Amino acid sequence: MIRVGIVGGTGYTGVELLRLLAAHPEVEVAVITSRAEKGVRVDELYPSLRGHYGIEFTTPDAQQLAECDVVFFATPHGVAQAMMAELLAFDTRVIDLSADFRIKDIELWEQWYNQPHGCPELVAEAVYGLPEVNREAIKSARLVACAGCYPTSVQLGLIPLLEQGLVDPSRLIANAASGVSGAGRGASVANLFAETSDSFKAYAAPGHRHLPEIKQGLTEAAGEPVGLTFVPHLLPMTRGIHATLYSELTVENVDLQGLFEERYRDEPFVDVLPAGSHPQTRSVKGTNTCSIAVHQPQGGNTAVVLSAIDNLCKGASGQAVQCLNIMFGFDEKTGLNNIAVAP
Amino acid sequence: MIRVGIVGGTGYTGVELLRLLAAHPEVEVAVITSRAEKGVRVDELYPSLRGHYGIEFTTPDAQQLAECDVVFFATPHGVAQAMMAELLAFDTRVIDLSADFRIKDIELWEQWYNQPHGCPELVAEAVYGLPEVNREAIKSARLVACAGCYPTSVQLGLIPLLEQGLVDPSRLIANAASGVSGAGRGASVANLFAETSDSFKAYAAPGHRHLPEIKQGLTEAAGEPVGLTFVPHLLPMTRGIHATLYSELTVENVDLQGLFEERYRDEPFVDVLPAGSHPQTRSVKGTNTCSIAVHQPQGGNTAVVLSAIDNLCKGASGQAVQCLNIMFGFDEKTGLNNIAVAP
Amino acid sequence: MIRVGIVGGTGYTGVELLRLLAAHPEVEVAVITSRAEKGVRVDELYPSLRGHYGIEFTTPDAQQLAECDVVFFATPHGVAQAMMAELLAFDTRVIDLSADFRIKDIELWEQWYNQPHGCPELVAEAVYGLPEVNREAIKSARLVACAGCYPTSVQLGLIPLLEQGLVDPSRLIANAASGVSGAGRGASVANLFAETSDSFKAYAAPGHRHLPEIKQGLTEAAGEPVGLTFVPHLLPMTRGIHATLYSELTVENVDLQGLFEERYRDEPFVDVLPAGSHPQTRSVKGTNTCSIAVHQPQGGNTAVVLSAIDNLCKGASGQAVQCLNIMFGFDEKTGLNNIAVAP
Amino acid sequence: MIRVGIVGGTGYTGVELLRLLAAHPEVEVAVITSRAEKGVRVDELYPSLRGHYGIEFTTPDAQQLAECDVVFFATPHGVAQAMMAELLAFDTRVIDLSADFRIKDIELWEQWYNQPHGCPELVAEAVYGLPEVNREAIKSARLVACAGCYPTSVQLGLIPLLEQGLVDPSRLIANAASGVSGAGRGASVANLFAETSDSFKAYAAPGHRHLPEIKQGLTEAAGEPVGLTFVPHLLPMTRGIHATLYSELTVENVDLQGLFEERYRDEPFVDVLPAGSHPQTRSVKGTNTCSIAVHQPQGGNTAVVLSAIDNLCKGASGQAVQCLNIMFGFDEKTGLNNIAVAP
Repeated sequence: MIRVGIVGGTGYTGVELLRLLAAHPEVEVAVITSRAEKGVRVDELYPSLRGHYGIEFTTPDAQQLAECDVVFFATPHGVAQAMMAELLAFDTRVIDLSADFRIKDIELWEQWYNQPHGCPELVAEAVYGLPEVNREAIKSARLVACAGCYPTSVQLGLIPLLEQGLVDPSRLIANAASGVSGAGRGASVANLFAETSDSFKAYAAPGHRHLPEIKQGLTEAAGEPVGLTFVPHLLPMTRGIHATLYSELTVENVDLQGLFEERYRDEPFVDVLPAGSHPQTRSVKGTNTCSIAVHQPQGGNTAVVLSAIDNLCKGASGQAVQCLNIMFGFDEKTGLNNIAVAP
Repeated sequence: MIRVGIVGGTGYTGVELLRLLAAHPEVEVAVITSRAEKGVRVDELYPSLRGHYGIEFTTPDAQQLAECDVVFFATPHGVAQAMMAELLAFDTRVIDLSADFRIKDIELWEQWYNQPHGCPELVAEAVYGLPEVNREAIKSARLVACAGCYPTSVQLGLIPLLEQGLVDPSRLIANAASGVSGAGRGASVANLFAETSDSFKAYAAPGHRHLPEIKQGLTEAAGEPVGLTFVPHLLPMTRGIHATLYSELTVENVDLQGLFEERYRDEPFVDVLPAGSHPQTRSVKGTNTCSIAVHQPQGGNTAVVLSAIDNLCKGASGQAVQCLNIMFGFDEKTGLNNIAVAP
Repeated sequence: MIRVGIVGGTGYTGVELLRLLAAHPEVEVAVITSRAEKGVRVDELYPSLRGHYGIEFTTPDAQQLAECDVVFFATPHGVAQAMMAELLAFDTRVIDLSADFRIKDIELWEQWYNQPHGCPELVAEAVYGLPEVNREAIKSARLVACAGCYPTSVQLGLIPLLEQGLVDPSRLIANAASGVSGAGRGASVANLFAETSDSFKAYAAPGHRHLPEIKQGLTEAAGEPVGLTFVPHLLPMTRGIHATLYSELTVENVDLQGLFEERYRDEPFVDVLPAGSHPQTRSVKGTNTCSIAVHQPQGGNTAVVLSAIDNLCKGASGQAVQCLNIMFGFDEKTGLNNIAVAP
Repeated sequence: MIRVGIVGGTGYTGVELLRLLAAHPEVEVAVITSRAEKGVRVDELYPSLRGHYGIEFTTPDAQQLAECDVVFFATPHGVAQAMMAELLAFDTRVIDLSADFRIKDIELWEQWYNQPHGCPELVAEAVYGLPEVNREAIKSARLVACAGCYPTSVQLGLIPLLEQGLVDPSRLIANAASGVSGAGRGASVANLFAETSDSFKAYAAPGHRHLPEIKQGLTEAAGEPVGLTFVPHLLPMTRGIHATLYSELTVENVDLQGLFEERYRDEPFVDVLPAGSHPQTRSVKGTNTCSIAVHQPQGGNTAVVLSAIDNLCKGASGQAVQCLNIMFGFDEKTGLNNIAVAP
């Protein structure tokens, strides 16, 4: 039984961690912090947790967090940076769900996040938390920087093609769409029901913060710099990311279906659908699965990969629990066995 | 490990049974029938089940079903009646999710369902499957007639008041609303997304088939015939039933909150919220919980009870699994521990 | 051509006024105010208005507003009170969409709105803006206090019964449900898409601010004080209010259908549906129509009235334009002819 | 006043025609046909039309339709082909909303629609009904084959680039998403609310019937055959199409914003948004507007065009009315002035 701390437990990735960890037989949530909700029981804020948690939110305190075996940061960017050095000075291991330690090029991070990096000395050590790429490094990591939601859906869809050098890496297109929960739980007019329901639009077409993270991962898979156009869209639903990925095949007669099945044969959370399928977000809602299908329309030279995840689960908290399982030697599926509610 | 059969597995209560039973450590789904989908793997029809089931739909066959320890009927009304006598002739026990054996007055059933009853001789033996009322009888039942969705939400909200004789039983009002999944998985124009989304309406105001079932249960609780007006409504969402129940208090200074907490103190699946609360359907989505709150607006003599369930879970398949647990001596919560996905 | 001013044009009732007035051949929107959006073009904030308006938001200024023939207040409560005396000192007429002047009992207003009334001296003069009840008084009113959204749906459904003394006025129940836009356009966690979608709940069961307004109107119709239980609910959709109204018939053999058809025969915006119907909110979305049906379930002594409106149109801005048409002698339907988009 | 007939009035494009034509001062709907609903009043089937239409559905009859000045076909493919020759033998003009006469290559049509063409002799004469491309030809056409929904959104977004030869025509990508109403009003499990709500997926990735229509239009604009990958997606909402269009710029320093503004300067129904904008489907819902924005992410050589329409309006019935206005010399905006309901 390991002791877990959660910093920033009131947001959507925080409550999702609580939901998943309640079903995890090897962990106990010992600390959960929130300045704003200090003293409030977690099941008062989240009635869905009634009967599963009796603890209250507390003010974040490094000393107290250090008594945990592992601490999750479910915070906006900037927060983990500020506490990280102090926390790692203890024996505690950290799984950061924010973007603070994902990008290796510190200048690039500062440019896209528009602020100085608060802990550049730990960036190199941080292990990028995408188990399908980095499983070995995660095992022994002190600090895991969990992959983001869009980056997970796009990378899992494109790396089989890039690793094998089958597509032109300079002409990648990632057309992705996310549910509104991706925008977080902050009070805002833009994310009101009355503003987002029953409508669809692209956003951040000039450039989204996940772009450098995705390019970093794809570049590593390709072994050379990639050219990527990434356009995110906002869906009138709460959870789910779907990526439609276009790339140009440079070799003929490739067995795309076989390639994907082979690449992910042993992955517990990547499900390559039968040929001709179309993954849907509802089938993976609340689960840690990435559902993938690959097409070659009209037998032409465009590969179309379709990839669906739950942005709060495989795109955030589920992936974080998967990393925890890897770090602590548990079966990788522990606590992550649930089935999507359908319909 | 008991062997389970499911008749009519392609509908929404069928797939919900599969979802719940996959997490049940004491059962194995041995047979699942569907004439239309014979030979199709269940995870082909329901991608959310991929990785959890390898079985295929088969044509219903009493002999084969009789090899199961228990058979669920997840069928439209009329189907269970036709097979019941043959099936009970074997040792198999049956949990019927349909309306076939819920109503004790056979003429009343025939009047509301507009057809002759196909198995009147077993109606008296059938045990009404609402554990909060009938737990003892369910334990030894051969045939359990699971309570319907609206009936569950209404009865759990009103019986504490009626059992104690605190309200006028002749003036009960049940204003209820259901998600569209309550209409089932049949092809129909009326239940298309384009017809039901972004709108709200009452339906069946002149009389809904669940009315006699609800009155039967309330009459039993009150110890005298009740007068009930029941108006169902259609919500633009998939799952969930919410009942708003109005009754007239006949005694003064009643501690309504205490009454409900006391009545349901030992019930694992009825959650009486703190005073002043309003249950919401999303907090119980995918779970077997009935979430209840009670109000006395402006201290007047109207008691307002609010009750929320998942129509496919506590209103159907979850309740059926709860009955199974009771019938076979398992812990009543086995397989029913999951937490609602929120947000 | 009359000149119109709108105070508080950035909220949902403000943009709805702009949509309706763009189709009104007799008016010109001369001034629209918003402190927060001063200098911003209205079609920048509301892209749906592109091509229809070129004006910008300005800071509210009584002098400038007084140059209008009529000024709408589309503001939260408290704002109209503060400017009313100054504005009426000019010749300008006012249509207030807020709750500031709806309740005749000033103490009652202060109790429910929890603040001192800012302009008690004009309350008596204000005409309650529900044309189906008050058409004559509206014609010559200087200050119209438009009926609220819930109050419109409930009053139009119950007054035919109360005016004729057909039901027990002490036992009225109004079970109503509103789309999320009723909560306005303020930034809030509670009204985020991720918080309200795919769920349903009651709220304010202990007492909602529209209760005294509704009781005032029903008391007037009944000629005696009424007893009313009013429970509002929140729907996972943007627009629409549906009220399900229960009352106890005190006379036998009433032709309810005929009563309603007769009461509203000449009303351009009340549509009594054929017997046996169920109004739906989508059929009146974006229109000024109140769609009504009346039922007497199982021929018992409970009358069930179903009433549907668009909360932002007949429940707010459409009703305000209807009042404007009455005040200025235009055909009452001017600018209010559009048909709901269906599906 | 011209007389209008509608064949196939019960589907979604049929009711949309009725909504639009009710606001058209120059037309009278004289005939509306439906075999299934013969004798039913249109406002019984569509309550939103109450008060606007008194006519009933009749069985289709060429003689009776020929008395109309113009006949709309709002039918599935195959129906217009069967009646066209007989109808055009009279003086009646026809606007066909189906796919029957859109594709000039008859073999190609037969291949994608998997049936012999029923009226090949009129294909050459049919004028493709996309006014922004074909206005002059539409004026005098006897038979207009209205552009489809996806084809309208994709062509309006790409033709400015192709006409000017600014992009590589062999590498076009159209990623599009449609509301569920695009699937029509037929009873089907796949389009139930419970199947499509709260989820997102691609469909028809191997090839969609609109592909040859789109390629035909783009080829004409480019003056050479184009290579196009087209992947449609299904949105959990009723109305709206959004296309995200990727192409590779072959010249440097292009003023994309100026190009689009210039191309559509005089078009009443194409709204080029300010630089940096993202069109949303809700802003054009119920209107005939195509809202467009163009981006060049990170100043690279990929042009990203975003295009939003209402699939039933500019994508079908609104475009048909626009064609009618052109054919009969009315102001092109007649009957098409309404503003989207927002929020």
